[in-house]
Amino acid sequence: MLEPVNRLAVLESLQDLLGDAGLLTTLEDCARYVTGARYGVGQAMAVARPNSAVQLSQLVSLCAAHQLKLVVQGANTGLVAASTPDQSGQYLVLSTERLSRCIEIDTVNRSVTVDAGVTLHDLNEALKEHDLCFPIDLGANPTIGGMIAANTGGARLIKYGDVRQNLLGLEVVLLNPPGRVLDLQSALRKNNTGPDLKQLFVGTSGAYGIISKAVLQVHRLPKQTATALVVPRDQAAVLELLQRLERDCGELLSAFEGISGQALASVLRHVPAISNPFGSLADIPDYCVLIELDTSIAQQHSGLCLEDLLSNSLATLLTGSDDDIITNAVIGRGKDLWRIRHAISESLRSEGKIIAFDISMPRSSLVDFRQQAIGLIKTHYPFLQIMDFGHWADGGCHFNLVWPHVAAIAYDATTVSAVRDAIYDMVVREYQGSFSAEHGVGPYNQTYYHRFTSQAAQQLAGKMQRLLDPDRLFGLTWFGELAE
Amino acid sequence: MLEPVNRLAVLESLQDLLGDAGLLTTLEDCARYVTGARYGVGQAMAVARPNSAVQLSQLVSLCAAHQLKLVVQGANTGLVAASTPDQSGQYLVLSTERLSRCIEIDTVNRSVTVDAGVTLHDLNEALKEHDLCFPIDLGANPTIGGMIAANTGGARLIKYGDVRQNLLGLEVVLLNPPGRVLDLQSALRKNNTGPDLKQLFVGTSGAYGIISKAVLQVHRLPKQTATALVVPRDQAAVLELLQRLERDCGELLSAFEGISGQALASVLRHVPAISNPFGSLADIPDYCVLIELDTSIAQQHSGLCLEDLLSNSLATLLTGSDDDIITNAVIGRGKDLWRIRHAISESLRSEGKIIAFDISMPRSSLVDFRQQAIGLIKTHYPFLQIMDFGHWADGGCHFNLVWPHVAAIAYDATTVSAVRDAIYDMVVREYQGSFSAEHGVGPYNQTYYHRFTSQAAQQLAGKMQRLLDPDRLFGLTWFGELAE
Repeated sequence: MLEPVNRLAVLESLQDLLGDAGLLTTLEDCARYVTGARYGVGQAMAVARPNSAVQLSQLVSLCAAHQLKLVVQGANTGLVAASTPDQSGQYLVLSTERLSRCIEIDTVNRSVTVDAGVTLHDLNEALKEHDLCFPIDLGANPTIGGMIAANTGGARLIKYGDVRQNLLGLEVVLLNPPGRVLDLQSALRKNNTGPDLKQLFVGTSGAYGIISKAVLQVHRLPKQTATALVVPRDQAAVLELLQRLERDCGELLSAFEGISGQALASVLRHVPAISNPFGSLADIPDYCVLIELDTSIAQQHSGLCLEDLLSNSLATLLTGSDDDIITNAVIGRGKDLWRIRHAISESLRSEGKIIAFDISMPRSSLVDFRQQAIGLIKTHYPFLQIMDFGHWADGGCHFNLVWPHVAAIAYDATTVSAVRDAIYDMVVREYQGSFSAEHGVGPYNQTYYHRFTSQAAQQLAGKMQRLLDPDRLFGLTWFGELAE
Repeated sequence: MLEPVNRLAVLESLQDLLGDAGLLTTLEDCARYVTGARYGVGQAMAVARPNSAVQLSQLVSLCAAHQLKLVVQGANTGLVAASTPDQSGQYLVLSTERLSRCIEIDTVNRSVTVDAGVTLHDLNEALKEHDLCFPIDLGANPTIGGMIAANTGGARLIKYGDVRQNLLGLEVVLLNPPGRVLDLQSALRKNNTGPDLKQLFVGTSGAYGIISKAVLQVHRLPKQTATALVVPRDQAAVLELLQRLERDCGELLSAFEGISGQALASVLRHVPAISNPFGSLADIPDYCVLIELDTSIAQQHSGLCLEDLLSNSLATLLTGSDDDIITNAVIGRGKDLWRIRHAISESLRSEGKIIAFDISMPRSSLVDFRQQAIGLIKTHYPFLQIMDFGHWADGGCHFNLVWPHVAAIAYDATTVSAVRDAIYDMVVREYQGSFSAEHGVGPYNQTYYHRFTSQAAQQLAGKMQRLLDPDRLFGLTWFGELAE
């Protein structure tokens, strides 16, 4: 811990390096950097906002010299408290938001070189002019550096992959030796020249090094989209539906989002501007699936009409016979349907306190898991509302529960903890799933990292963290064994 | 080095562990394991063929106890001498060929769990019954473990990605602690629970650990394919053609293979069974491009006909006007056209000694590079034939040269070395390209790894190799700095 005098000296050095715009020290200025989007409220010693990779490198050297602990933050949209400091007031928040000048597009190579602090929205705005996009679809507007550090997935992973799969190159500022710039920038799709070091920095929240720049593969903007909201016969039919669509619509399937009737009803209750796709509340099904196809192939001249393709495929599943896979389908109205999907989280918050899950498993296990998990909640926690939704095509499931404001039993953290333990144990141990599909690991869920990661894996991850950051400048997340 | 008596004792321990079928010791038995597919002829102390992950693990422990150096070998199809021993006779070749029992297909999850020694051909045969495939397309028939250790790319990378992008999980036998099994098996598409340790073992030829099992994402078998051999107006038009096809045919473009007129002529000279797609030898163009679309969407009911899509797109590029992008197109005959493409390497060998290049660069640089490289060869090495071909869509280029049997100047290794240096320097330093796009790094090209990899990257790669293999059980490839 820094002594008061020392603290002043450190702040002076930071000020000298970063200038007025680069260092925030008042409580008021720091406020928005110390509160996480969902979890985590802390105190920062200061917020450092370097405006170049060189300044970032010098900053890391300075922190090492003073043994200052760092938290790296992009747009602070993360959901596991990995970008905000703890309560100690000893952390320096390192914000990448001023590393946002460079967006260099190579249209022929379909790639872009981008500073870590550029936001997804700004990147896509720049790409749009060239008929291109970075198609990782998220509810939030993170920075590119944050997306890489969390390896975000999103709703269209089945077609476009995750961030890792679209990452061509990186520039990283290392913690050991402190401030060394590791230039792994490359705009190559094929490059097998030894260990692919950039992979170390994907999904590790800054613990292995700080991302300052990235080279991404980008995609052509979709020219056609087709959307439908479909009611499966029953839960087993959801997986049948997924397989039929993959057969009929192949690589053009871009989203397959399951929505529970409870989640849909909640949206319709709380967002009056959204109209009910099924007519009346009484018609809301137990479960429905938002399906999307997209393609960069224009309809004109190509003979390919996505709406026809989807309609024809659904028609064969809805003939009126007993073995139909689906019992209803609302086709079209893509914008409205996605509004429903994106309004779920906010609507659930209006119902009560959310117990959120970001889990995944092999797709083949989703039906069984959901049945077992619903059974567990109904039996042991009947006062909780099950309002889940999920990206079935990639095995993702937000098995979100709501503890209603009006529940007979008062909210308590011990029960929430027991519920989380029970569901995570089921996901990981019975269904070989993941306790964090796309949100990453941070203080909010690190205890589950240690619970579910094998000893051999934790030992190796810890050895690497000691190699990359022997002085633990990055203080929040520790991937090694707890005993160490 | 092992003393003779010690050597006998070690062989006895190996024999006890592996049994008769698991250990080969005679020169005759070892012959096919010590000669590389293209480069590398050495001598092995013996060939060990464990038949289970447990046996593999015990074998690694035993090697560590005796300080025995290992070379890991799959189907021995690699092209950089990374799977065959040196001349010392001190290496034990560890063949994974008997780890080939498990092929477990999860059709709903579209994934497969497979032993490292299963070959690509056998995997695809098993998948075919379920209408699935692992679409990494290569000339050879490697093992899955070898494909991961080399991170192979192939001709259809632009559509299906490389091996890394289709890898869901791994089981690895570590070298430190020797023989520890690291179970990273997972069939998850979304899983962000800390460092993705499996990435360490992709593209590192066994230097960081030995792959015993893998979980792969698989794809639906194509139901339609359309192929054409097209003559671009000139070199600049090749990149225009690529962009037009990506615009018109979008994500269905599965291959875009440039073939020089010289390479095509060589195939037609040496493989009489292949007929000339352009009619007569006099009509062979300076350069042509093999284009392929594929999709798992059947034509029936979908309205999508790939042959029409490709024909229509090409028709707009070939109108007979001066600014046409292409000047000729042969549509269809997919099998014949791929036979040409796959016969190039063999045909070139009939012409003389090949100086092979497996390079890549941003697609936007391919035209400029090719012009400059051709200029260099014509000026300084006019006796060499330029017979290049390449995967333009992923930036790959096999800038292969032939030193003709009938050349006025006799073949000499010093000149070959100078040519390699000049071309690699141009690729990496002037075009930010790669000296090994898909063949990986091994003794054949390790000198270029040290020449072109930054000091910071080599230091980090070396630190990791020391961490993962402190006793250098894996002896062939060293990713750290040479000075160490």
